[in-house]
Amino acid sequence: MKKYRVAVVGATGVVGKEIITILEDRKFPVSELVPLASERSAGAEVVFHGDSVEVLALGPDSFKGVDIALFSAGGSVSAEYCPIAAKSGAVCIDNTSHFRMDPTVPLVVPEVNADAIKQHKGIIANPNCSTAQLVVALKPIYDAAGIERIVISTYQSVSGAGTAGLDELESQTRANLRGVDAPPEKFSHHIAFNLIPQIDSFLENGYTKEEIKMVNEIKKILGDDKIRVTATAVRVPVFVSHSESVNIQTKKPITAEKVRELLEAAPGVQVLDNPAEGVYPTPRNVAGEDDVFVGRIRKDISQENGIEFWCVGDNLRKGAALNAVQIAEAWCDQNTTKPQ
Amino acid sequence: MKKYRVAVVGATGVVGKEIITILEDRKFPVSELVPLASERSAGAEVVFHGDSVEVLALGPDSFKGVDIALFSAGGSVSAEYCPIAAKSGAVCIDNTSHFRMDPTVPLVVPEVNADAIKQHKGIIANPNCSTAQLVVALKPIYDAAGIERIVISTYQSVSGAGTAGLDELESQTRANLRGVDAPPEKFSHHIAFNLIPQIDSFLENGYTKEEIKMVNEIKKILGDDKIRVTATAVRVPVFVSHSESVNIQTKKPITAEKVRELLEAAPGVQVLDNPAEGVYPTPRNVAGEDDVFVGRIRKDISQENGIEFWCVGDNLRKGAALNAVQIAEAWCDQNTTKPQ
Repeated sequence: MKKYRVAVVGATGVVGKEIITILEDRKFPVSELVPLASERSAGAEVVFHGDSVEVLALGPDSFKGVDIALFSAGGSVSAEYCPIAAKSGAVCIDNTSHFRMDPTVPLVVPEVNADAIKQHKGIIANPNCSTAQLVVALKPIYDAAGIERIVISTYQSVSGAGTAGLDELESQTRANLRGVDAPPEKFSHHIAFNLIPQIDSFLENGYTKEEIKMVNEIKKILGDDKIRVTATAVRVPVFVSHSESVNIQTKKPITAEKVRELLEAAPGVQVLDNPAEGVYPTPRNVAGEDDVFVGRIRKDISQENGIEFWCVGDNLRKGAALNAVQIAEAWCDQNTTKPQ
Repeated sequence: MKKYRVAVVGATGVVGKEIITILEDRKFPVSELVPLASERSAGAEVVFHGDSVEVLALGPDSFKGVDIALFSAGGSVSAEYCPIAAKSGAVCIDNTSHFRMDPTVPLVVPEVNADAIKQHKGIIANPNCSTAQLVVALKPIYDAAGIERIVISTYQSVSGAGTAGLDELESQTRANLRGVDAPPEKFSHHIAFNLIPQIDSFLENGYTKEEIKMVNEIKKILGDDKIRVTATAVRVPVFVSHSESVNIQTKKPITAEKVRELLEAAPGVQVLDNPAEGVYPTPRNVAGEDDVFVGRIRKDISQENGIEFWCVGDNLRKGAALNAVQIAEAWCDQNTTKPQ
């Protein structure tokens, strides 16, 4: 079996660490792991299959002999180093938003559009966390009934803001429970026992970048520019897993039962939907899981061809690290099976 | 100035306590406060304008000489005692869902439909917390442009579940931070650092009672059965204030600027909407405030005549106790000013 030299850029961040864990868990064929980070984090060690591996400082020469480079160190790092890595022969799987809407870069969720990988020119983009989990649930519905419009409200965990987000929720909560005020540092407002209806910065049209990422990326991944999408993205005081309240209008009629049946059969989705028994996904259930969990599937009483559901996914796994590794796996498959 | 004997049923509960505070704050013309509760809580004392007042056990004779009875002790208590209180001559303002959809009972948010009070036959219903705050913001838009359809996702605080809800969020959060598991008691799932996409019990159609309350009550208060409404109600780990992500389709076109202008002029609403400066309402800002706060007002990019906004209100005040006292105030006004 072919093995690969795999670089992880941002190896000491919350997603980078998760990528290394998932490469190990899924027995990805790694001949050598090359953990890369900023100067500041270089010299740290990561453990991979029982061995300590030193984190190296990222630089223009980091990618020599690297087959696959998984980037998760921010948009500006990807902007600078993905082209360098691609030029030196690596396939880059980029977890930042930098290249996602570049028409020459495939934006991939393997359960939905693995074939798009074939078009890559050295860089493959990994979608926004909220998008990745949602399109896995949308795809079977889209294929069966078409989708006219989607209205999304998100409930996004602090781990979407990295280690600093996790730390701030914990320390601010502790302080609040002691009756002490701990002013926000990472977030724009208090997050402990609070909600922040802003993720990323605002655009002219009153939407945030996070919201517009969802709008654009859903269309690109499903390959349909005509789907009308709107979203409101809200940060909630939850450590891990993003949740989404989703209202869709399909083109053709479809029953809630049929949606349930389609999602039960879909790859990467688990249906947890037995309201009578209080069974539906919550972020706490889903943290650490690979699949996307869907519940509260019901006919929307306010429109024809309307379906509503509640979708929860581990934003560090399907929303980031897992999807990146799944792209790498799909690329390997296509690479080893395609005729030479 | 005429003064009234005012009974508060459920005087030791989280809403009952808030009602007493608000009667005091707003200098409601109380000649005598009669705090009532179950046998278990009788004998406790509440402080009103500096005096200790003993809480009495609720019974069939509790309402003799009472002018106004504010009920907040659960649906079954209201079902039994509102008719008794009404029969003995009190006007009942009921905070439970029991009478809300009764066609002979007005359902009132004074900023929206104070006139409906005149139709009362002894009982006036106070709407669901999520409904009360939302209709205040919907009314000016409804009047200006009509409303075709509303899609709501809520982010509701634990105080909606009373003192036990507040206690469970606090104790479970403390336990979690010590690494100890504290199983849910009040709620159906963990609430600390988690979300529960269920409030109240489920109906046959897959919606919860809470969601259908919003659907029905919005139509009744706005006096328009044709408005199409859907909602997803979610409990979030916040102590006080309910938040709502609201997507509306108006009948006539209206700009976000016009909505902002209408809401700025509307009674009971404050617009907090300066995205560039990170200004929008959060539950923490709004707790303790009487007004409903609206932000993130924008044109919905996914439909014609679409408007989106984010609405936050103190669920114990506008969502319950304050609205009840405002109904009492409006009733007093109508009572003293109407021709005999």
